[in-house]
Amino acid sequence: MQQSGNAYKVRLAFNQLEIPFTLVNVDILRGENRTPDFLRKNPEGRIPLLEMRGRGYLAESNAILCFIAEATALFPDGRWERAEVLRWMFFEQNSHETYLAQPRFWLSIRGGADLRRDHFDDWMERGYAALMSMERHLATAAWFAAGRYTIADIALFAHTHVAGEGGFDLATFPNVLAWLDRVKAQPRHIGIDWVAEPP
Amino acid sequence: MQQSGNAYKVRLAFNQLEIPFTLVNVDILRGENRTPDFLRKNPEGRIPLLEMRGRGYLAESNAILCFIAEATALFPDGRWERAEVLRWMFFEQNSHETYLAQPRFWLSIRGGADLRRDHFDDWMERGYAALMSMERHLATAAWFAAGRYTIADIALFAHTHVAGEGGFDLATFPNVLAWLDRVKAQPRHIGIDWVAEPP
Repeated sequence: MQQSGNAYKVRLAFNQLEIPFTLVNVDILRGENRTPDFLRKNPEGRIPLLEMRGRGYLAESNAILCFIAEATALFPDGRWERAEVLRWMFFEQNSHETYLAQPRFWLSIRGGADLRRDHFDDWMERGYAALMSMERHLATAAWFAAGRYTIADIALFAHTHVAGEGGFDLATFPNVLAWLDRVKAQPRHIGIDWVAEPP
Repeated sequence: MQQSGNAYKVRLAFNQLEIPFTLVNVDILRGENRTPDFLRKNPEGRIPLLEMRGRGYLAESNAILCFIAEATALFPDGRWERAEVLRWMFFEQNSHETYLAQPRFWLSIRGGADLRRDHFDDWMERGYAALMSMERHLATAAWFAAGRYTIADIALFAHTHVAGEGGFDLATFPNVLAWLDRVKAQPRHIGIDWVAEPP
């Protein structure tokens, strides 16, 4: 489900870290995440899901990011710096991702926004609050943690850069817009539409 | 705000790790998280917040857990085991905490549940789905990650053990109930009402 911001995070990190992987498409609009085979791998039926041969399956996009970025420049060694990375990654899952991803899913991916019309006001209010938190942080820092580009930036970039597809207007968030450009300028950056496997 | 499940997580881990700390109460019902002084420390105005002298402030309860449990038995060393711990901690923040904590806040802490009555059906549905994920996992495992008691269990315990205060009925989740008892039986466990500082 390559349009998923959560799946994109993992593709982006794999590519920037130049780690070979096999991409298996699971289309949730066709219910491919609800087959007995997929539910055996991840009983929650959610994507992305990492399969590590000899180890098993790992769910949760941000846990996958932490796992694959371990001991790389994207996930710092210092104890305090690591905590700062995780601080923003937990923020992303608790206060950001849900409210940006759901409007986009119903407006631009699945369609049928009227089905969840009663939720939109709440999602927009909380989504804008999350964007405001990011704007405030980025007023005095170029990156979210550790003074450099990390998996915290990847996690937050995934749903922020397509927030407009969920009806959000980023025009009043100049620091966020400048940070989006900095992320896009990182080596081996790929867009969310990129689905080819690395060589 | 000691009734907060997120604040309780941190007190519990500090106590079990026998790490001395100073507890500063911030009562969100009195707006103590909205004072200029507190907002200077955490612009999001959320608790818990860790102050480390010489380092600064760290928000997000699960990031605090990772920080203080580093290099202890509560946060395993192995790369895959750490990823499993984080997988359940991200699940807790994305799919669990919001839906269990908000009904409890409006029913049992703040009062005034009618103000958010339109949200209760959604919270209960998603909260029960999270409890079902836990029940399924605990059918074949005693703990959430790494085969032992970790900060993933602490994170999930905090809001699960008081789910009844939010209107959830755990009677049909026998594996969750047995796991709650196992957590309570861990050395130096403290209840959510425990607010004294360690010696």
